[in-house]
Amino acid sequence: MAHDKGFVLWFTGLSGAGKSTLARMIEPELRKRGCKVEILDGDEVRTNLSKGLGFSKEDRDTNIRRIGYVANLLARNGVVAITAAISPYAEVRAQVREMCSGRFVEVYARCDIEVLTQRDVKGLYKKALAGEIKNFTGISDPYEAPENPEVVVDSATQTPEESLRTILDYLENAGLIPAAAGAQA
Amino acid sequence: MAHDKGFVLWFTGLSGAGKSTLARMIEPELRKRGCKVEILDGDEVRTNLSKGLGFSKEDRDTNIRRIGYVANLLARNGVVAITAAISPYAEVRAQVREMCSGRFVEVYARCDIEVLTQRDVKGLYKKALAGEIKNFTGISDPYEAPENPEVVVDSATQTPEESLRTILDYLENAGLIPAAAGAQA
Repeated sequence: MAHDKGFVLWFTGLSGAGKSTLARMIEPELRKRGCKVEILDGDEVRTNLSKGLGFSKEDRDTNIRRIGYVANLLARNGVVAITAAISPYAEVRAQVREMCSGRFVEVYARCDIEVLTQRDVKGLYKKALAGEIKNFTGISDPYEAPENPEVVVDSATQTPEESLRTILDYLENAGLIPAAAGAQA
Repeated sequence: MAHDKGFVLWFTGLSGAGKSTLARMIEPELRKRGCKVEILDGDEVRTNLSKGLGFSKEDRDTNIRRIGYVANLLARNGVVAITAAISPYAEVRAQVREMCSGRFVEVYARCDIEVLTQRDVKGLYKKALAGEIKNFTGISDPYEAPENPEVVVDSATQTPEESLRTILDYLENAGLIPAAAGAQA
């Protein structure tokens, strides 16, 4: 059965903390439950909505507001809009939350910068530490952690499956998605 | 009953030709029929998605691609996404049509430039003719009329109500919306 309670599932966290991985893992789980889902990934959105913007605070904020605008359009029409941009600044995240009036679930993908630097799957931290990437969040650019996110997951202490379960539990308990696949069909 | 066949209703035409007026008139008609509707008006989108872009061909095309990207996201999730930007260039309209793969209805809001210049509701044509507005479509910037739009309306020869009826007839005959309010509930 179709489930059309839309909301924004807003991941925030450092590069490599698991935002996109979890976004991709949760998508089929939500679809199984009858939800419509769109993932607005950071890179895809930069290509389609924000080409030309850089990584200054102003440009980052503009990018985040655009993602928020689109996510809200989708959410208010019954879609679960999953965003997976770093979104380092608390103020603009708060603006987006406000815009999404009650349909906003912030998931903080936490991970110690030491762990991220050691893992460094894409080699970005090494480059950033060497000064080869400017405005790199967590190294040469600030990251303002959420103070009251709806969900916290931690890829330093949880497996991706555990983080996924944490998010699904929250969404089920909040009544945003059916308790399990088919249970409310 | 909810009707969730999404598609993009893409208005194109010169400033003052009736795009926004018809978009606003059709919205309640679609809602009466159970459709979800979002209007992506030219001005609103420029504020939310395209601040900083100007009116060069490149910037206009970028603006149109962004509107198309968002309209397609909505349409493929069951929303009727109505756009009302001038969208003067045929090539980028064709790109958006392609992106929306089969969910694209182009409505050409036609109106002779002479009529628009005489009416000049917002005083823009006078300014454009005086050279006070650069890149003004139809005066100092090109407008490439659609060759095969799904619908043509003409505000020089039709009342807004007649144009509205023309569009609704097309959508009903194409099976995109229920034939009349409640008839298929």
